[in-house]
Amino acid sequence: MYERSMLISEARVTPILVSDAPLLNLQGVHQPYTPRCVIEVVTEGGVVGLGETYGDREYLTALQTFAAHLPGHPVTASTRLWDLAAEILRPETVDADLLGERPDREMFGRRNLDKLHGIVVSAFEVALLDALGRTVDLPVHALLGGKLRDRVDYAAYLFYRWSEHPTSHASSDDWDAALDPGGVVRQAERMVREHGFRSLKLKGGVFPPEEEIAAVTALHQAFPDLPVRLDPNGAWSVDTGTKVAENLRDVVEYLEDPCTGTRAMAEVHRRARVRLATNMCVTTPGEIPEAFATDAVQVLLCDHHFWGGLQATQHLSAICKTYGVGLSMHSNTHLGISLAAMTHAAACAQGDLHACDTHRPWQTEDVITRPHRFDGGAITVPDEPGLGVELDREALARLHERWSGSDVRTRDDVAAMQVADPHWSMPSMPRW
Amino acid sequence: MYERSMLISEARVTPILVSDAPLLNLQGVHQPYTPRCVIEVVTEGGVVGLGETYGDREYLTALQTFAAHLPGHPVTASTRLWDLAAEILRPETVDADLLGERPDREMFGRRNLDKLHGIVVSAFEVALLDALGRTVDLPVHALLGGKLRDRVDYAAYLFYRWSEHPTSHASSDDWDAALDPGGVVRQAERMVREHGFRSLKLKGGVFPPEEEIAAVTALHQAFPDLPVRLDPNGAWSVDTGTKVAENLRDVVEYLEDPCTGTRAMAEVHRRARVRLATNMCVTTPGEIPEAFATDAVQVLLCDHHFWGGLQATQHLSAICKTYGVGLSMHSNTHLGISLAAMTHAAACAQGDLHACDTHRPWQTEDVITRPHRFDGGAITVPDEPGLGVELDREALARLHERWSGSDVRTRDDVAAMQVADPHWSMPSMPRW
Ligand SMILES: [Mg+2]
Ligand SMILES: [Mg+2]
Repeated sequence: MYERSMLISEARVTPILVSDAPLLNLQGVHQPYTPRCVIEVVTEGGVVGLGETYGDREYLTALQTFAAHLPGHPVTASTRLWDLAAEILRPETVDADLLGERPDREMFGRRNLDKLHGIVVSAFEVALLDALGRTVDLPVHALLGGKLRDRVDYAAYLFYRWSEHPTSHASSDDWDAALDPGGVVRQAERMVREHGFRSLKLKGGVFPPEEEIAAVTALHQAFPDLPVRLDPNGAWSVDTGTKVAENLRDVVEYLEDPCTGTRAMAEVHRRARVRLATNMCVTTPGEIPEAFATDAVQVLLCDHHFWGGLQATQHLSAICKTYGVGLSMHSNTHLGISLAAMTHAAACAQGDLHACDTHRPWQTEDVITRPHRFDGGAITVPDEPGLGVELDREALARLHERWSGSDVRTRDDVAAMQVADPHWSMPSMPRW
Repeated sequence: MYERSMLISEARVTPILVSDAPLLNLQGVHQPYTPRCVIEVVTEGGVVGLGETYGDREYLTALQTFAAHLPGHPVTASTRLWDLAAEILRPETVDADLLGERPDREMFGRRNLDKLHGIVVSAFEVALLDALGRTVDLPVHALLGGKLRDRVDYAAYLFYRWSEHPTSHASSDDWDAALDPGGVVRQAERMVREHGFRSLKLKGGVFPPEEEIAAVTALHQAFPDLPVRLDPNGAWSVDTGTKVAENLRDVVEYLEDPCTGTRAMAEVHRRARVRLATNMCVTTPGEIPEAFATDAVQVLLCDHHFWGGLQATQHLSAICKTYGVGLSMHSNTHLGISLAAMTHAAACAQGDLHACDTHRPWQTEDVITRPHRFDGGAITVPDEPGLGVELDREALARLHERWSGSDVRTRDDVAAMQVADPHWSMPSMPRW
């Protein structure tokens, strides 16, 4: 009875290309356009729930395969999506690329079947919660036990960057290049001035460690009251990671993924006793026990996009609290639907929550009618039904058209760097 | 806006006395009447949400103190109850009895402030979820991510028992005494015949281990297809626990709390390699890491009444799944509101769920209009709004009147046993 109007009648997956800035990282540089997907789940009652996730070709296929099985599924049964994913997305039915190691492709840990299920479930779980919330007139946070905070703090996500992409077929923004400590500090100044952020994070792994130590130290001197983090995406050896940690002991709030792998992380922490965070060595539940047992990670960077959604994020926050591990949020290039989802999840997270990462300020486009504005570095948790955002169908159509007219189907920072430097390849690790 | 009709206008705590059977355990025997509390949370919108929990004097006071602070709190904000509990129930504001060791009083672990908060939050969290579900016309399981199963399996909870209480001022039922293997098997036969249970559990710690081994072995022989468990409530030494485990290796599904304390449990498991369960050495999140790290527990017996409620149960199920630990549910003397809450929680629990314990078949009374019936040992998960049960106000008034006219304010199995045996005292541990 309660399920009649709550059955899904249609699930749509719309691939789009989002313009992106020339942000540098270990692998190379962000492409001019990066693929994302917008999920729409329509109920028999005529309500539309929204989700947003990765748009790379192989994910797109998995998402579309999954979407085809959703009609008839109740929006109240989001946890059952896991069983559905296990049924539909099996080793023999998915792109082999999704299950193999692709260090050149991603910087959020291993690819395996659990991870794929988490990614697909998450995209639709958010849309189901949005649809359910709109149907019963409750904000998503009320479906997660209610918000514990009225505002969610985000960090200024600083990047070494060029002012322009190395190709004329590219979007552009009005940010200056930042390739040394002075440039990074100026970038932070503008981020803080425009958005009020009260935490700073620098994406590292781009320059030799001493240059990045200098940049982080300069940030600390320029903003002595703001916590600072550095994330080289696992680029360093244990010796290098230990040295950087010792150098930055009194400067950083935490050091993010100094090395690749739980064992290396544990060893750096054992040697340097500096707080470490990860969104690389622990990205599925199966990796938690070893990492916590060896004290490899003191802050876990959750990302609802691959941990399986907003309820999984709540569970993860409870696990972290139980084990005395802090929590923050990892981010990738994303738009406003994801930012709304992140905000609801963070609003309800238990335990020791640090300011969340977000790439949002780097995006000049959005697919929602009223793009978020940061106030004092925070987003106010919406109390409107569902996620509290409305789809901008014109914008969606425009970005989908861009996708249709382009051959960009994957985010590939290595290939993007090769446009500028034909000899570039994914650095072998540890890079330093 | 969404919160207007969802604010709590009143929270009522009604103490009742429930007639109980002369069930034997380590401490003594169940009293003729045991105190419980029924919680009612009334919203501005006129909806009533129900909860049920312990009724002992010291809990009653804490529950009433907490209830007085609830008016104005939104029923959507159940997770925030934890902060409220921490604010209101502090060491200096609660009965010292609630924070000290009382091995003579309880068999579900340590008393401390976290535990007290979990108990109080749980009682009201269930009532808030019931009220929220009734308000938005959703079953509680849909507020927990949706049911993963349509039926929840329960175990026949067998007890050594007398046919009558050792006093004439007592309720009575139509069950025979069970004081030896034959009596236990006959009790199981009736339980299975009347309710269809497909798992058996014997409460032990009453007779010397060899007698309980004989009873469990007799159960296994009489019901070779049904899993059997034995729970002596931590009565044995490590040597005794190991010997019993080795004896029952091929008989029991798991052995529950053979010894007291995580270290002793870990040692028994290390020696005997038999699966162990607990609702004693792990009853708060703080006790999880050591128990899992030392492999002291292979099945955790959750009890939403002290773990903090239904959402906390979901988090716990995620933790157990992450660590490869099975899950079942602990039970105390309870009525239909609790059984409904347990059923919703179990319906949504992830991971390896074993048939849940319930004392319900021993209770001849209830406070709901349509008491549950077990079918094939299971309860069908209700899809009605909220918990799916209606309060029987006449029954509630009757049981509250019994409470008002009695001086029983605490459940005390030791004192109840002293009625039959004035020389009885709480056995010193380990008993065997
Ligand atoms: Mg990172
Ligand atoms: Mg027990």
